[in-house]
Amino acid sequence: MGDAKRNTSSSSSGSDEEIRAQVAKAVEEVKELQDKAASFVSRAATDEQSLRQRAQSLDSSIRRLRSQLYSLLSSKALDHKLAEKLEEDLQRATCVLVDGEAASFLPGKSQGGGFLRMFLGPINVRSSSKDIQLKVKEEYNAYRDRTALLFLIFPATLLILRSWIWDGCLPAFPVQAYQAWLLFLYTGLALRENILRVNGSDIRPWWIYHHYCAVFMALVSLTWEIKGQPNCSQKQRGVQLFLQWAMMQGVAMLLQNRYQRQRLYTRIALGKAKRMDVVWGETAGVDGQLWILCPILFVLQGFEAYVGIQLLTTAFIGVVSEWQVSFCGVLLVLMAVGNFVNTVQTLMVKSRF
Amino acid sequence: MGDAKRNTSSSSSGSDEEIRAQVAKAVEEVKELQDKAASFVSRAATDEQSLRQRAQSLDSSIRRLRSQLYSLLSSKALDHKLAEKLEEDLQRATCVLVDGEAASFLPGKSQGGGFLRMFLGPINVRSSSKDIQLKVKEEYNAYRDRTALLFLIFPATLLILRSWIWDGCLPAFPVQAYQAWLLFLYTGLALRENILRVNGSDIRPWWIYHHYCAVFMALVSLTWEIKGQPNCSQKQRGVQLFLQWAMMQGVAMLLQNRYQRQRLYTRIALGKAKRMDVVWGETAGVDGQLWILCPILFVLQGFEAYVGIQLLTTAFIGVVSEWQVSFCGVLLVLMAVGNFVNTVQTLMVKSRF
Ligand SMILES: CC(C)(COP(=O)(O)OP(=O)(O)OC[C@H]1O[C@@H](n2cnc3c(N)ncnc32)[C@H](O)[C@@H]1OP(=O)(O)O)[C@@H](O)C(=O)NCCC(=O)NCCS
Ligand SMILES: CC(C)(COP(=O)(O)OP(=O)(O)OC[C@H]1O[C@@H](n2cnc3c(N)ncnc32)[C@H](O)[C@@H]1OP(=O)(O)O)[C@@H](O)C(=O)NCCC(=O)NCCS
Repeated sequence: MGDAKRNTSSSSSGSDEEIRAQVAKAVEEVKELQDKAASFVSRAATDEQSLRQRAQSLDSSIRRLRSQLYSLLSSKALDHKLAEKLEEDLQRATCVLVDGEAASFLPGKSQGGGFLRMFLGPINVRSSSKDIQLKVKEEYNAYRDRTALLFLIFPATLLILRSWIWDGCLPAFPVQAYQAWLLFLYTGLALRENILRVNGSDIRPWWIYHHYCAVFMALVSLTWEIKGQPNCSQKQRGVQLFLQWAMMQGVAMLLQNRYQRQRLYTRIALGKAKRMDVVWGETAGVDGQLWILCPILFVLQGFEAYVGIQLLTTAFIGVVSEWQVSFCGVLLVLMAVGNFVNTVQTLMVKSRF
Repeated sequence: MGDAKRNTSSSSSGSDEEIRAQVAKAVEEVKELQDKAASFVSRAATDEQSLRQRAQSLDSSIRRLRSQLYSLLSSKALDHKLAEKLEEDLQRATCVLVDGEAASFLPGKSQGGGFLRMFLGPINVRSSSKDIQLKVKEEYNAYRDRTALLFLIFPATLLILRSWIWDGCLPAFPVQAYQAWLLFLYTGLALRENILRVNGSDIRPWWIYHHYCAVFMALVSLTWEIKGQPNCSQKQRGVQLFLQWAMMQGVAMLLQNRYQRQRLYTRIALGKAKRMDVVWGETAGVDGQLWILCPILFVLQGFEAYVGIQLLTTAFIGVVSEWQVSFCGVLLVLMAVGNFVNTVQTLMVKSRF
């Protein structure tokens, strides 16, 4: 019936045929692509699985060998010199395994999984390509640069306007907008750092916890009532301290960024994986900077603790009695102590090489 | 010299040899693995690239053929019957391309990229495995189930305690804890929905915008001062309405979840891709439920608008004069209207088949 109908139509059967053939070809090609894609996906999954198993078993056999080495050494069954050489071989193998292309097939660091899972669900944020991992890291640095500037400018503007225009009395809205921005910012940083960690960064867990604390602090500060006149400057003492702390954070971030960007670029330029640098003594010339950076960081951390204690004092002598003030005070002191301890530990690890 | 030293030590050179061989083997194997991993990664990248190009070119040639078909048809150069058949072929090919294994090689939906990028940076959240995509979707549903219950219980408890224990006057802390939880929850939902969209879900952009609005609302409500006695119940009218709206959201979510979970399971059980269902008329028997669900949703949306207008009224007659109250009111009305329009549009699209 279809044929009969088609014959009655006066269409040029040339173009009929042509488009029919083209459509058939497209359909055929789609099927082909579908098959290719399916086989690619399943093949890649199998390959990945086997690489993963292989990486894991090598990782554990290196661990086993290392402990064997130690026990042989302690029972004096092995020559010291040989043991050292073997130890170095194993170390080098570990470096290749952990920092090379195979690294993405080792099980990810579990820490941070919780936070990411909470926000994103069971999605994989691990990239198996070194290039993308590097891009993510660079973008993270760029993000921090952008925010560090705002970190300085935003609270500084608030404090300047306060004394010049607002007569010593901050209006609630801009302060709250700032706090909301902080909340958003720290959440983003915490998410990104967790992603970096999953992608093999050696970032210390504390720096991530530190941002969790900052998230909490921003959240709590949002609920903290910004009181107005009369007696404004006294009632707003807490807010003022908070803004000063934020400015100081901006300074710390800018300095740290400068150092860390250079560190990354040197590393990329050298084309070497990080752990190897350290183990083989090529510390890439930025560690000198660390000895200038750290004293400044210590001063800033001291100031952080000072702001925390000031907040606690205003809370306890009853000038501002809201729980938010003491809560932020405690958090600040905790963060200062944690930052200090972790900076010192970083320095100690570095100076060991 | 090393040799000389080793000979002086009284070690059993058997175990010497053995561990030396084992370490050498491990080092060798790590190198092998490194090479394998590198070649796998680069091969996979090439394959993916070519699949991506192929998918994109097929996609555009299908588009081109379709527009050719239409122009031939409108210039009456093609038989109607044949055109219909070809159109169906093309539709089927599109289905395979867009819902099959090849789908993950088509460029992702760009919408939502901004939000994800803002929080996560340039990380890829797209999965090329259908199984994982399904798992993400299931987890999203499970997450919503969990939260829907809390959505009911949390504000209900607050409202009950208010009249039974708190004498009509909500204390600030639990309300603010609730608002913080809402903020966290909606941010998570918005992130997850964006991820689903990147992974090929057909979720309407509005439902995501809706959650952005909710995020804003939670944020603003955090800065909204919870006033106490005297005259508490009048001053807290806004908060009370807000809690009632939240409970209503819980009901809506529970209903919607029930429906959507069934929809997903039917789809999985049928083992068919979604668009095909629709095109080939197999609507999988859950659409009947939609006609029961929607009237309830309309009632809830009406209530949402009502709460919004109530908030605006309390703000304008000056009972509670904070800007937060009118802002939330406007947002609620907007959300109600948007929800209504989009639910109607969904129904219209569905009833066309
Ligand atoms: C001390 C410090 C300069 C050391 O930096 P570093 O030399 O990069 O330290 P490490 O070698 O241990 O770094 C390991 C990894 O953690 C990252 N990292 C270190 N400190 C970090 C921080 N504070 N935030 C985010 N990432 C950090 C590094 O980038 C590196 O990542 P990678 O493995 O992906 O390359 C740095 O940790 C720092 O600035 N800390 C002080 C922060 C602070 O106190 N801020 C608030 C001031 S009150
Ligand atoms: C009307 C409604 C039931 C239709 O659901 P549906 O039949 O799944 O709609 P569609 O077929 O258009 O769904 C397309 C996709 O969007 C998803 N989706 C639809 N509505 C969604 C929503 N509100 N939130 C999240 N995802 C949604 C579906 O799961 C589906 O995903 P998939 O492509 O990955 O399978 C649903 O949109 C709904 O419940 N809307 C009302 C929500 C509301 O008003 N809530 C507040 C009440 S005041």
